Amino acid sequence: MELERPYLLFLGDVHDQLAAKVADGLYYWRPEWCVGQFRLPGCQADVGAPDLTIGQAREKGAKTLVVAVANAGGFLAPTWIPVIIEAINAGMHIASGLHVRLGSVPEIAEAARAKGVNLHDVRHSDRTFATGKGAVRAGRRLLTVGTDCSVGKKYTALSLERAMRGRGFKADFLATGQTGIFISGRGIAMDAVVGDFISGAAEWLTPSADPDHWDVVEGQGSLFHPSFAAVTLGLLHGVQPDAFVVCHEPTRRNMRGVTAPIPSISDVIHLVTVMGRVTNPAIRCVGLSVNTQHLEEKEALTYLRRLTNEHNLPAIDPVRFSSDPIVDRIEREFGEAA
Amino acid sequence: MELERPYLLFLGDVHDQLAAKVADGLYYWRPEWCVGQFRLPGCQADVGAPDLTIGQAREKGAKTLVVAVANAGGFLAPTWIPVIIEAINAGMHIASGLHVRLGSVPEIAEAARAKGVNLHDVRHSDRTFATGKGAVRAGRRLLTVGTDCSVGKKYTALSLERAMRGRGFKADFLATGQTGIFISGRGIAMDAVVGDFISGAAEWLTPSADPDHWDVVEGQGSLFHPSFAAVTLGLLHGVQPDAFVVCHEPTRRNMRGVTAPIPSISDVIHLVTVMGRVTNPAIRCVGLSVNTQHLEEKEALTYLRRLTNEHNLPAIDPVRFSSDPIVDRIEREFGEAA
Repeated sequence: MELERPYLLFLGDVHDQLAAKVADGLYYWRPEWCVGQFRLPGCQADVGAPDLTIGQAREKGAKTLVVAVANAGGFLAPTWIPVIIEAINAGMHIASGLHVRLGSVPEIAEAARAKGVNLHDVRHSDRTFATGKGAVRAGRRLLTVGTDCSVGKKYTALSLERAMRGRGFKADFLATGQTGIFISGRGIAMDAVVGDFISGAAEWLTPSADPDHWDVVEGQGSLFHPSFAAVTLGLLHGVQPDAFVVCHEPTRRNMRGVTAPIPSISDVIHLVTVMGRVTNPAIRCVGLSVNTQHLEEKEALTYLRRLTNEHNLPAIDPVRFSSDPIVDRIEREFGEAA
Repeated sequence: MELERPYLLFLGDVHDQLAAKVADGLYYWRPEWCVGQFRLPGCQADVGAPDLTIGQAREKGAKTLVVAVANAGGFLAPTWIPVIIEAINAGMHIASGLHVRLGSVPEIAEAARAKGVNLHDVRHSDRTFATGKGAVRAGRRLLTVGTDCSVGKKYTALSLERAMRGRGFKADFLATGQTGIFISGRGIAMDAVVGDFISGAAEWLTPSADPDHWDVVEGQGSLFHPSFAAVTLGLLHGVQPDAFVVCHEPTRRNMRGVTAPIPSISDVIHLVTVMGRVTNPAIRCVGLSVNTQHLEEKEALTYLRRLTNEHNLPAIDPVRFSSDPIVDRIEREFGEAA
């Protein structure tokens, strides 16, 4: 992937902040790559970047319009097409992490051809994968899992990569979704892989490595989510993690986009352990990562302390506080960096 | 799908009988549709149909060559291509359930164009699906699950459809794999669906129906199989079965194609129940279906009796004996046909 930077983040007319999580993630982890955001009337999200028109963004040097939106089904709303065409006509490349390919919209394909700009569909890989083998591979792997979608699995993995590298670990964040691919410049959008090859793609993403190397893999969905658990399980089996971290959002009442209730943290630890043993009998939970943004700071600290006691595991918020307690636990369980 | 019949079954040069399960299934359930089989030198499988050359098959009226082979990855072996070209040149249509599309092989595409015959890739659907919703739907659903791949999930579902219809139930077999699609003329190859849409495709396959209607759904893979569990779980969540039957092959030692051990029947019942509750809290096991072909008859009966006592569930072999005990159980748990 060679996306030309800087970016203009396109948020469309999404109805809540979570739907703008691609833009949020990109702006949080790579603010220096983003000149601003473009929002349609009615847009309920705001990543905090300057609101710019296409013309203003071009003046600030924007090279690529990133369709930085996540929606169930990954479709392209008809209201977004004129903006994309305008950006193309202003000479910008377009990058999207949606399921639908940019080039499948005839007007977009034609405008891009006429202007000679590139259309990047980062969710799609033209690579073919083998089926998963389940064979043991060298190297260490950590996977973030969740009680739900959109609870901080990517942030937790990126934060752990940073903290582990800070202590001298060989650790690499591995993206499994569109935003992570935008942030790290590589990865596989696991939810776009054909069913038979999901665990095989996860094995390809996390190949045999030095015994002291850590892959820190961004998880997807939740084993308890009625829409997306298939991807979650294929990823778990393929990554064969030695360690996992459960991510949670304590104010959520239902699974994202459906009416199913949120499972308990204990249920997630239990089920991930049982299912993870299929490819790694030694799998274990090394921590809990909570998105406490909707709690007061004191409330958040009390909640994390309670979880730590309840589960005998470090409980952190990697954005608000620090990931160090989980790295401490990793050092205790697997040894410090050499 | 409008495949022209009768078929010539192409077995290639597969190394064991299980790899010919597409041909086996088609010939077992629809012998009247098959004029014979074509095997390459070294082929270790035999479905019991007459061995015919392409010319002989044409003389017997064969209209379509069915590439009736299952391999991990669903690829087309180079040694098969000349046979497919020969069949095309003899005027036959080609149907395949492999992942790879027939038309992606230039020689095949060109020969088909030249002769004006059709290439059918039954594993691929051009339909787009929504993501799964997990909402409760009217009607009853039964899913066959397995301790492994290739243990009789399709045979069990077809046999239950037949037995349930025999007692006046409104029951329909629903195919989720290539062979089932060849046999029933409809269905979705779940393992070819993109990860994000697996449970949504399963919901589409088993829509809201009359309260007394039973969908009898062919299961796929196993929750414990390191290659294919993603598809198994998406199917389980999407079908939201009221009832499931565990299929098992008692002489198998390792999961098909990998080194992982076979899980116990109890582990499968437990895990399917736990995970199935995500979309149907009332899910329950109504029977065990065993492929006893590698046991002597007396041994098989003893084994089934032991399982029945151990699990307090009817244990049957639908091919060798009868599916009636499971239909008895369904009547007891859910009521007889109206």
